[in-house]
Amino acid sequence: MIPRYARPDMVAIWSPEVKFRIWFEIEAHACDALAELGVIPKEAAKTIWEKGGAATFDIDRIDAIERETKHDVIAFLTHLSEIVGPDARFVHQGMTSSDVLDTCLSVQLTRAADLLIADLDALLQALERRAFEHRDTVTIGRSHGIHAEPTTFGVKLALAHAEFQRCRERLVAAREEIATCAISGAVGTFANIDPFVEEHVAKAMGLKAEPVSTQVIPRDRHAMFFATLGVVASSVERLATEIRHLQRTEVLEAEEYFSPGQKGSSAMPHKRNPVLTENLTGLARMVRSYALPAMENVALWHERDISHSSVERYIGPDATITLDFALARLTGVVDKLLVYPERMENNMNRLGGLVHSQRILLALTQAGVSREDAYRLVQRNAMKVWESYHVAGSATVDFLEELLKDPEVRAALPEEEIRKRFDLGYHTKHVGTIFRRVFGREG
Amino acid sequence: MIPRYARPDMVAIWSPEVKFRIWFEIEAHACDALAELGVIPKEAAKTIWEKGGAATFDIDRIDAIERETKHDVIAFLTHLSEIVGPDARFVHQGMTSSDVLDTCLSVQLTRAADLLIADLDALLQALERRAFEHRDTVTIGRSHGIHAEPTTFGVKLALAHAEFQRCRERLVAAREEIATCAISGAVGTFANIDPFVEEHVAKAMGLKAEPVSTQVIPRDRHAMFFATLGVVASSVERLATEIRHLQRTEVLEAEEYFSPGQKGSSAMPHKRNPVLTENLTGLARMVRSYALPAMENVALWHERDISHSSVERYIGPDATITLDFALARLTGVVDKLLVYPERMENNMNRLGGLVHSQRILLALTQAGVSREDAYRLVQRNAMKVWESYHVAGSATVDFLEELLKDPEVRAALPEEEIRKRFDLGYHTKHVGTIFRRVFGREG
Amino acid sequence: MIPRYARPDMVAIWSPEVKFRIWFEIEAHACDALAELGVIPKEAAKTIWEKGGAATFDIDRIDAIERETKHDVIAFLTHLSEIVGPDARFVHQGMTSSDVLDTCLSVQLTRAADLLIADLDALLQALERRAFEHRDTVTIGRSHGIHAEPTTFGVKLALAHAEFQRCRERLVAAREEIATCAISGAVGTFANIDPFVEEHVAKAMGLKAEPVSTQVIPRDRHAMFFATLGVVASSVERLATEIRHLQRTEVLEAEEYFSPGQKGSSAMPHKRNPVLTENLTGLARMVRSYALPAMENVALWHERDISHSSVERYIGPDATITLDFALARLTGVVDKLLVYPERMENNMNRLGGLVHSQRILLALTQAGVSREDAYRLVQRNAMKVWESYHVAGSATVDFLEELLKDPEVRAALPEEEIRKRFDLGYHTKHVGTIFRRVFGREG
Amino acid sequence: MIPRYARPDMVAIWSPEVKFRIWFEIEAHACDALAELGVIPKEAAKTIWEKGGAATFDIDRIDAIERETKHDVIAFLTHLSEIVGPDARFVHQGMTSSDVLDTCLSVQLTRAADLLIADLDALLQALERRAFEHRDTVTIGRSHGIHAEPTTFGVKLALAHAEFQRCRERLVAAREEIATCAISGAVGTFANIDPFVEEHVAKAMGLKAEPVSTQVIPRDRHAMFFATLGVVASSVERLATEIRHLQRTEVLEAEEYFSPGQKGSSAMPHKRNPVLTENLTGLARMVRSYALPAMENVALWHERDISHSSVERYIGPDATITLDFALARLTGVVDKLLVYPERMENNMNRLGGLVHSQRILLALTQAGVSREDAYRLVQRNAMKVWESYHVAGSATVDFLEELLKDPEVRAALPEEEIRKRFDLGYHTKHVGTIFRRVFGREG
Repeated sequence: MIPRYARPDMVAIWSPEVKFRIWFEIEAHACDALAELGVIPKEAAKTIWEKGGAATFDIDRIDAIERETKHDVIAFLTHLSEIVGPDARFVHQGMTSSDVLDTCLSVQLTRAADLLIADLDALLQALERRAFEHRDTVTIGRSHGIHAEPTTFGVKLALAHAEFQRCRERLVAAREEIATCAISGAVGTFANIDPFVEEHVAKAMGLKAEPVSTQVIPRDRHAMFFATLGVVASSVERLATEIRHLQRTEVLEAEEYFSPGQKGSSAMPHKRNPVLTENLTGLARMVRSYALPAMENVALWHERDISHSSVERYIGPDATITLDFALARLTGVVDKLLVYPERMENNMNRLGGLVHSQRILLALTQAGVSREDAYRLVQRNAMKVWESYHVAGSATVDFLEELLKDPEVRAALPEEEIRKRFDLGYHTKHVGTIFRRVFGREG
Repeated sequence: MIPRYARPDMVAIWSPEVKFRIWFEIEAHACDALAELGVIPKEAAKTIWEKGGAATFDIDRIDAIERETKHDVIAFLTHLSEIVGPDARFVHQGMTSSDVLDTCLSVQLTRAADLLIADLDALLQALERRAFEHRDTVTIGRSHGIHAEPTTFGVKLALAHAEFQRCRERLVAAREEIATCAISGAVGTFANIDPFVEEHVAKAMGLKAEPVSTQVIPRDRHAMFFATLGVVASSVERLATEIRHLQRTEVLEAEEYFSPGQKGSSAMPHKRNPVLTENLTGLARMVRSYALPAMENVALWHERDISHSSVERYIGPDATITLDFALARLTGVVDKLLVYPERMENNMNRLGGLVHSQRILLALTQAGVSREDAYRLVQRNAMKVWESYHVAGSATVDFLEELLKDPEVRAALPEEEIRKRFDLGYHTKHVGTIFRRVFGREG
Repeated sequence: MIPRYARPDMVAIWSPEVKFRIWFEIEAHACDALAELGVIPKEAAKTIWEKGGAATFDIDRIDAIERETKHDVIAFLTHLSEIVGPDARFVHQGMTSSDVLDTCLSVQLTRAADLLIADLDALLQALERRAFEHRDTVTIGRSHGIHAEPTTFGVKLALAHAEFQRCRERLVAAREEIATCAISGAVGTFANIDPFVEEHVAKAMGLKAEPVSTQVIPRDRHAMFFATLGVVASSVERLATEIRHLQRTEVLEAEEYFSPGQKGSSAMPHKRNPVLTENLTGLARMVRSYALPAMENVALWHERDISHSSVERYIGPDATITLDFALARLTGVVDKLLVYPERMENNMNRLGGLVHSQRILLALTQAGVSREDAYRLVQRNAMKVWESYHVAGSATVDFLEELLKDPEVRAALPEEEIRKRFDLGYHTKHVGTIFRRVFGREG
Repeated sequence: MIPRYARPDMVAIWSPEVKFRIWFEIEAHACDALAELGVIPKEAAKTIWEKGGAATFDIDRIDAIERETKHDVIAFLTHLSEIVGPDARFVHQGMTSSDVLDTCLSVQLTRAADLLIADLDALLQALERRAFEHRDTVTIGRSHGIHAEPTTFGVKLALAHAEFQRCRERLVAAREEIATCAISGAVGTFANIDPFVEEHVAKAMGLKAEPVSTQVIPRDRHAMFFATLGVVASSVERLATEIRHLQRTEVLEAEEYFSPGQKGSSAMPHKRNPVLTENLTGLARMVRSYALPAMENVALWHERDISHSSVERYIGPDATITLDFALARLTGVVDKLLVYPERMENNMNRLGGLVHSQRILLALTQAGVSREDAYRLVQRNAMKVWESYHVAGSATVDFLEELLKDPEVRAALPEEEIRKRFDLGYHTKHVGTIFRRVFGREG
């Protein structure tokens, strides 16, 4: 966990305080079930809830016991007995450490998923707001980094919205996968504990009972969880990359928000670096990389080996904390993104209208000009514009004017027909449809 | 694609013949929609279906055209026009190459998913059959490779069944993700084609219309698809690893099927190698590795760059063909797995009953013996057994007998009470419950 | 192996013909050593060389035998005996299949490394030529995609040269790692074969004897080999990404070569897509991904399991063939890259001289102006320029002119002092030093 | 960084104290060079060394300044000026932040490499000691987990020694790669600082001057560094896996050291889990996974973007600290490994001598028996042994005895000839050679 890439709510999930609280709840709920089964006295279960529920667990004390016993769950149970008194002997009856540890991890990952889903909701909201704000802000669409056809900045954001909506659905599925509880004993046979305990604890903790476990919850669930986080991170990278491109000096159609007083820019006003989105690109690499050890964790030996544990100590916190931070940072970037519609228009126009060349070509062929001739006509005018653009970076020759001056073109197409091929509305006429598909409304 | 790890049905999906057939269908369905919109003549659409539907596309001819035009879709369309005649000019109106390529890839991946789901169904069936066959075959459960408590071989297979059932659900979700169609033009704005065409083709091809695309279908869908395959492969590795362990000379509780005539074993009958499951382990590494470039593919530049394309030429076929082969191979292994219940029993017993030491400990404390004394009593008898086991690999001292001979133990527990702690039924009493959870029935 | 991303020389290394030829050479050299040891008759060794050396191995025949025996090395040896006759019984004495297979893989990877090193030499040559050609072609250096300070295009290429020089050294080291021979028997003890045979074959095949092997050559060597290829591929991606950026419509300082007749550009002259470098970006993702299964291959069980084998059937050919193709493609791109110095100059100047603002700030403080005042002076002039740039994408206000018009600036700095801060030579004065460091010569 | 998987010396390298000390040294050495060039007063450089060298940097103060300035290097320089006084204005002249940050990272990674190399030296020493201790401890070699031929436990350790010796060489090369210094300014042109400063600082810090940098040191160096760590980690996993296998209940040829008082084992003496080596397996997965983001970091945009930085904040400490811990843990495991030669012998013998079947087969054919007959003879005797083994897990029929009783075998081979094929010395006769190759000495 890197403090500068961490937010308190997600960090808290992985704190010892929260972990021990979850452990306590699992144990206390299990006591309820055991009491209901008549295995332990009902009074004991009540006492455990009362004393344990009111207590603050002393992390240092637990650590001290663990240094001695070299066993984390025993250390906790020892400390719990210091708090609860004699009734503590009824705690953990017939359970194994993994019952507590794995169910706790499920709770933590489920809560982490909840935070991530909330992060996505905030991001979706920001994207929707900005998408509608720029629904009709025309900008050039680019394939291969080269001007293609016009689109709108709102469509770009709608695309991101649809992508993160998918990410949300994936996270909901991943949360569902991991919201599972196992209290099944040393090799999963319930030899020393009735399956009813598992069912009771699962329900109480907001989980489902794992249909069949070994000593541990099967790690394919965790692999799927972390793989999903990797995919979400990749979508973060995509939008971050888009913004980094838009902020390039030569493009500058949008910029990460830059507070007026932010240092360093005074003498070099052009030096506003897209450092937040660059940072997001790096964070995405990390979250993605965690998917692999999670997948390697699946093939544990027989009923379990403990190789997964060290991996999860890293990636449990690191993947969730980093992605939480990244989503929040991206939301901030989107929310406050400086968008420059005029520059978008100017960039598009720097090619002197060449983006319309395809439509002219089509118009000529539709007007009966042969494909070869149409090409020749478009090409000879386009080339003049292009040559004027090439060196200067801004065309001094205008495509429309050249076409209007070309007698062969004019012979095939009246001025009106030529002019209307330069209409941007042609490219944006279905934006409403797209918005309806994505947001359920056009405006 | 490695021929020895490939099965014909999945290979066929990636053949040029099938690809061009899908391309044709996309184009022809689009013509239907365009005809319905009145953009092209209905007769033309009909002709295209008739002539193209009857034709066999000449791969060599298309390749020859591509070598000239350096464009695969143009090459195909040129060949199609040779088949269809003048009406071919109505094909591909307002579409871009990616409309065809990406929708085709969706169809291919969807079909691949269907095969993989069918593979899983076969695997699940084999697992279910063998699980019930060995529902009550007691075997030792192992944590950390060390004997823990008894379980049954059927429970092991039930676990695998539950895991692959989850894999099936994941694949169904991944299929749903990728079953999407985009016919939206150069930058996704439908500038030159009505969204109705997309909707029509989507429906006709068994896909859904992509709510918003750029020039391409967003690659987060594909990333999720290949990540899912990586998780499924990891589950393959888990079961393969289990079997490899069981076949070790010292364990030998199960073996991959070995046909009587299979060469090389005659002189060394012990040298039956678990080469199929070792092979599956390697194949799993490959399928898993493809998840990463798929995730890196997500962050395309602006409305698309073509960096994803080469990646998909590799992993599209390689991931699906390899996983298909792996699942089928695993099904065969499970189906014909030689299981040795006697050896399972003998292995368990080689420790002279030590696996029951925990229960005796508990029985002693429940009988009023102090925890310390109970430990001492169990330990001194367990140690004798263990020492006899340690060197020889098979205990010559029996734990039960030692306990029965120990006066202090006997003072605390009558013989009957000791003996019943060695009852294996204690460990298998909930197997029915587990089976009901996994298979919906106990027997 | 994807044919379109494959070149014949590298493909040949992985052909069955070459593989069987290497197998034959290993076996025949081993026979020489065995003959020298007196284990087999010298005449037999001679016959084997003569008949086997002259023969063309019949792949179909070997395949047919393998289908029967299910063992590739036995199939080959059977076929060899058909060619060699009775003396064939002296072939493979005391050897195991892995002795042949693993040593063959070493030969193949060593040869692949040789091709890759030759690829790098060609790339380095192209980079050196173009670097000197553009040693003094001034262009803007960019950090975060934002204009920073001037550099030269030659320096960019010198950087790539230094990077690929390092890649070359890494590949030489990786080749050295993998150039190893093991003929040590079933578990590496030389039980049935004298270590002299290994030493003899190693020397004859241009390898070194593996100091200690199991049944196989340790896979850490292969892991290092493929990891190195992954790093080289990442450097390919870096240069490819640079070129993709330079070719963006708004930047257009360089372009992949575009043959005059190349289709598709006629009507849209601006639509020249950097498809080669985009393709290289994708290929790099693939080569990189192969490093992971190679690393997972290291931890084989005991003296060997065969899980590595399937992985290597994929990544052996795929990684080397793809990287070979990528390096050659990159060499072609560099060799024929269209470079536009005028556009570089114009892009740099589009900011109206703002890239010099830092130097003016420094000059003012050196002239005794307080840091705060210097900032204020620079800022108020810089801002005018910037604002004129911001919308249009090309400054209409000139920073130098504004400074010269500013009385406060002029009070601190004479015109001459201001003007000389706009000297580009200041930024390029150490280019010669850099070139000397990289190429050993300045011009 | 996970405290439980971290050792203080490696952690210290990544502490703010050490980082700021390195920053100071880079800056102060640069001042020396600047003073030598006459750019700043020699007295100033002296003062900076004296005051800065004596000072303890106040981390909290620096953090407080950074919160304000949002720039780590400026925060440090501000704090340094508080310590040094007016002469601090001569610090950092003409330098950029990356000059300090990247050179510092090189120093940190170089020091980390030194610790890792020392770790490997300790591991190699432990392996050498145990290898000679068990040079002649015969044990069964296993391929595919199945008994193959005898080897010695010393040979297994010699193999590990050779592997980690290679790892050491790789780390030395990786250290060499990363021991590089860049002080070259905003885009690497030395515009504001003479290359002499870089050369001076490089030498003073024990580094080499980077031949050509951009704003940053090229990241292919770091990629190679972390990829190398991933390979080393994979070798850790290999040896850890070997030990985990040997400790399985059924095998139990070696065990991680278990202190007599270690809790939990008293009642279940067989439950000694190989938790250290399982843990190492998980740690290896993590270190390996860091190679990928390191490779993705290579393709920075133009002269730099800052996406690599966040990645390195994770993997810089995590990869080095984890691998350092893993190597030390592995050394401890090897050093104190409990080895059970008797059990090794017993395991080998459990197959009743079947491991010698190949030699008998060979002896029969050499004695003139046809291949088919030899097979038949060996097989019929081997099968009796095998069947007696199969169920019980320990043969009750002895292969040697059966052979001696078989008249057909005896007709072909005298007793003496049969017996000598059961000589283990046959398998260990070249162990000395192997040891000489690996350790340079046989005993």
